[in-house]
Amino acid sequence: MMRIDIITVLPELIEGFLFHSIPKRAQDKGLVEIQLHNLRDYATNKYRQVDDYPFGGGAGMVLMIEPIARCIEKLQSERSYDEIIYLTPDGKPFKQADANELSGKQNLILLCGHYKGIDERVREHFVTREISIGDYVLSGGELAAAVVADAVIRLIPGVLSDETSALTDSFQDNLLAPPVYTRPADFRGWKVPDVLLSGNHKAIEEWRYEMSLKRTQERRPDLLSSNDSK
Amino acid sequence: MMRIDIITVLPELIEGFLFHSIPKRAQDKGLVEIQLHNLRDYATNKYRQVDDYPFGGGAGMVLMIEPIARCIEKLQSERSYDEIIYLTPDGKPFKQADANELSGKQNLILLCGHYKGIDERVREHFVTREISIGDYVLSGGELAAAVVADAVIRLIPGVLSDETSALTDSFQDNLLAPPVYTRPADFRGWKVPDVLLSGNHKAIEEWRYEMSLKRTQERRPDLLSSNDSK
Repeated sequence: MMRIDIITVLPELIEGFLFHSIPKRAQDKGLVEIQLHNLRDYATNKYRQVDDYPFGGGAGMVLMIEPIARCIEKLQSERSYDEIIYLTPDGKPFKQADANELSGKQNLILLCGHYKGIDERVREHFVTREISIGDYVLSGGELAAAVVADAVIRLIPGVLSDETSALTDSFQDNLLAPPVYTRPADFRGWKVPDVLLSGNHKAIEEWRYEMSLKRTQERRPDLLSSNDSK
Repeated sequence: MMRIDIITVLPELIEGFLFHSIPKRAQDKGLVEIQLHNLRDYATNKYRQVDDYPFGGGAGMVLMIEPIARCIEKLQSERSYDEIIYLTPDGKPFKQADANELSGKQNLILLCGHYKGIDERVREHFVTREISIGDYVLSGGELAAAVVADAVIRLIPGVLSDETSALTDSFQDNLLAPPVYTRPADFRGWKVPDVLLSGNHKAIEEWRYEMSLKRTQERRPDLLSSNDSK
């Protein structure tokens, strides 16, 4: 069973997400265990302080090294971790291939920054991998941790009820997914393509492949030309 | 005041996020209003059905056009919307510049897919913009909607307590942010760079700029060479 430990100053931001839908189902099935750790529980003073002003001045607060070190070392005393991942906009851009790789790991720590970030010494001495979920800035790493957890958890064998569902997703073969339609076949005169109603499975597969290719060429030609986009 | 309406089959996934921390503060200050809409409330049968099997066969369920059309049209009868945004892995990759642009809008609808996606006719006839938060697949659009909402809301003037904080974030000038440090200056022999303790503001600014540039060159040279990465 995979175990994911998430360290954050604001566990309430992602509790709702982690204990509903796919992540909940994965936990109910015993396929993954997710533990949230409130960084304030590892503070060293009575004010439960976890952040302080940046050396050298400037806007924003910085998460201190000591509470993070205490939390990580407590977890490491209980089991060994494959990766200690820090979510940060200057990390390596997260791709579906990374989700595939991480879904085969045993124990992961996801460390969420908040405010202006974390003390650089945490990154130098504790963190083994830095991940960015995209070229934009969020209020903290909590949503990024939820994104990584979700992308990884749904790929663990047995989590999705129909395993072929994940294999036909966008990116798994460097192609975007084809359009999908469901009932009614005609809504306000807007009709479903005839081929999908034809019952001709070979023609349907061909149409879907063509649509995937066309959509990828139009929207994301970079996926077709580069291997590292996968 | 900006208004963001989020349409989803699983509002409980993101409630916790939207009503804590920065988004909560922005709402408390009257700078943004966020409304969650449960798609099931717009279903047309007594089973509150919102999804059905895909035409042409295959794995996964597809969100039906009718409940989505009813929900969007009810909202449109109350106010006009700048954008109806569908969160999808085959959308345009979301960048900080998009967050900047959207932070100046008045009324936005964020439509979350789930399961295998939504009926293509919704995208053709209702959606005005399609956004992907990254090249990976999630269980649904809920986390993506939360990511876009968070990135946008924190840029609305007055939301962050110290407005310069957002201006020195990664990506705002195509550079990654420099390292940050806070107390203690020495932790287990791991020391903060001397310059940050020097009190020499000019030297500190120069060091930070050099570190930003170095980090960007090492980690994301693509940001320096392309304008559309911004």
